[in-house]
Amino acid sequence: MITTIGLDADDTLWHNENVFRLTQERFRGLLAGIADPDVLDERLAEIERRNHRLYGYGVKGFTLSMIETAMELTSNEAPGRVIADILAAGREMLSHPVETLPGVREVLAELSADYRLVLITKGDLFHQEQKLAASGLGNFFAAVEIVTEKDASTYQRVFDRVGTGSEQAVMCGNSMRSDVLAALEAGAYAAHVPYPLTWERELADAPRDNPRFVELASLAELPGWVRTLCS
Amino acid sequence: MITTIGLDADDTLWHNENVFRLTQERFRGLLAGIADPDVLDERLAEIERRNHRLYGYGVKGFTLSMIETAMELTSNEAPGRVIADILAAGREMLSHPVETLPGVREVLAELSADYRLVLITKGDLFHQEQKLAASGLGNFFAAVEIVTEKDASTYQRVFDRVGTGSEQAVMCGNSMRSDVLAALEAGAYAAHVPYPLTWERELADAPRDNPRFVELASLAELPGWVRTLCS
Repeated sequence: MITTIGLDADDTLWHNENVFRLTQERFRGLLAGIADPDVLDERLAEIERRNHRLYGYGVKGFTLSMIETAMELTSNEAPGRVIADILAAGREMLSHPVETLPGVREVLAELSADYRLVLITKGDLFHQEQKLAASGLGNFFAAVEIVTEKDASTYQRVFDRVGTGSEQAVMCGNSMRSDVLAALEAGAYAAHVPYPLTWERELADAPRDNPRFVELASLAELPGWVRTLCS
Repeated sequence: MITTIGLDADDTLWHNENVFRLTQERFRGLLAGIADPDVLDERLAEIERRNHRLYGYGVKGFTLSMIETAMELTSNEAPGRVIADILAAGREMLSHPVETLPGVREVLAELSADYRLVLITKGDLFHQEQKLAASGLGNFFAAVEIVTEKDASTYQRVFDRVGTGSEQAVMCGNSMRSDVLAALEAGAYAAHVPYPLTWERELADAPRDNPRFVELASLAELPGWVRTLCS
């Protein structure tokens, strides 16, 4: 018996990582002639890791880390134009239109008729709420949980509160680590829908032997799989 | 009958605004000789207002707005040292020790024995969770609600979910607008505990004629007032 379906947001319902990748390309262009692209990527990744315990996830922290990277790579001599352009790139990421993935609206409409849907996403509270509003998908969800970390205890707490416990819940998302492994550990079912670009930090091996796990090619396959669990 | 007590966090349970003020003083010092302090304060306030719809509340947005202000005031010629120092100031704000206000722990211990306590705060999810953890006050709360805006519908939703509705709830905080007026509008009782520094945006006239409102000199007076409501 399944009563509740948790859905990840970024790169599951709408594109997100591509916006980060495009901004990082623009950042490489801004520092062209000053820093080699590979060196820049490496320094940025290292500075992001270092800042994560202070900034958490999200665009504002990413923007601050890009500025810090530019300062470090130029020994504090980054041209003013570069800093102003990084600020503008960050603002553009925050106001970037939300592009839902193909078929998402139809799948949510179908699932929400039979199950309680809950959006479970990491990241910046303010920006995630804005993206949900801009997506026009808010009405399909019985609850929205924006959290700082998706681990087994997060899923237990959310599925207990919003649904009827993890054992009667499915989690679906593009991150093997945060959406699949943590939800399985909580006792839920988990469906992995890969996104072509997935952040390195979220990669992990698929738990192929777990009977509560499935790999789907797209979100459109989710309703069919959930039905098999209920039959 | 009161069952539930909502408490604001920043400048109600612990110092917050003073950290912003000190950083803004440091920012004035960084641009001394480049910009007049009054001009700088005005430009920063204007840039913060403009960015609010993208950044929301919190230290990361404030840091980005300081950098933008420095760039604007120098026509994109801010010395690299200034940018690096603003970044450092932002990181220091995020790792600043949490200083609870006097008597807070005792009041929460007393209230939590008889009422369901819920922390209701605006701002950055990641930073607020970190501050709560650092404060050591987390165990007194039955629920923690970090929200993007505190209006009447927020209070209704939270007190319905966590408690037994707004009519049996008290909200207490230092912001007349967000903690008092919005909670009264939701049908709750509201106690205002002023903080010496309060952000301009949060100021409003006290609703002196409202029988569900009280002004308290400190949080230590809250348990006594709540008892009068229950007798």
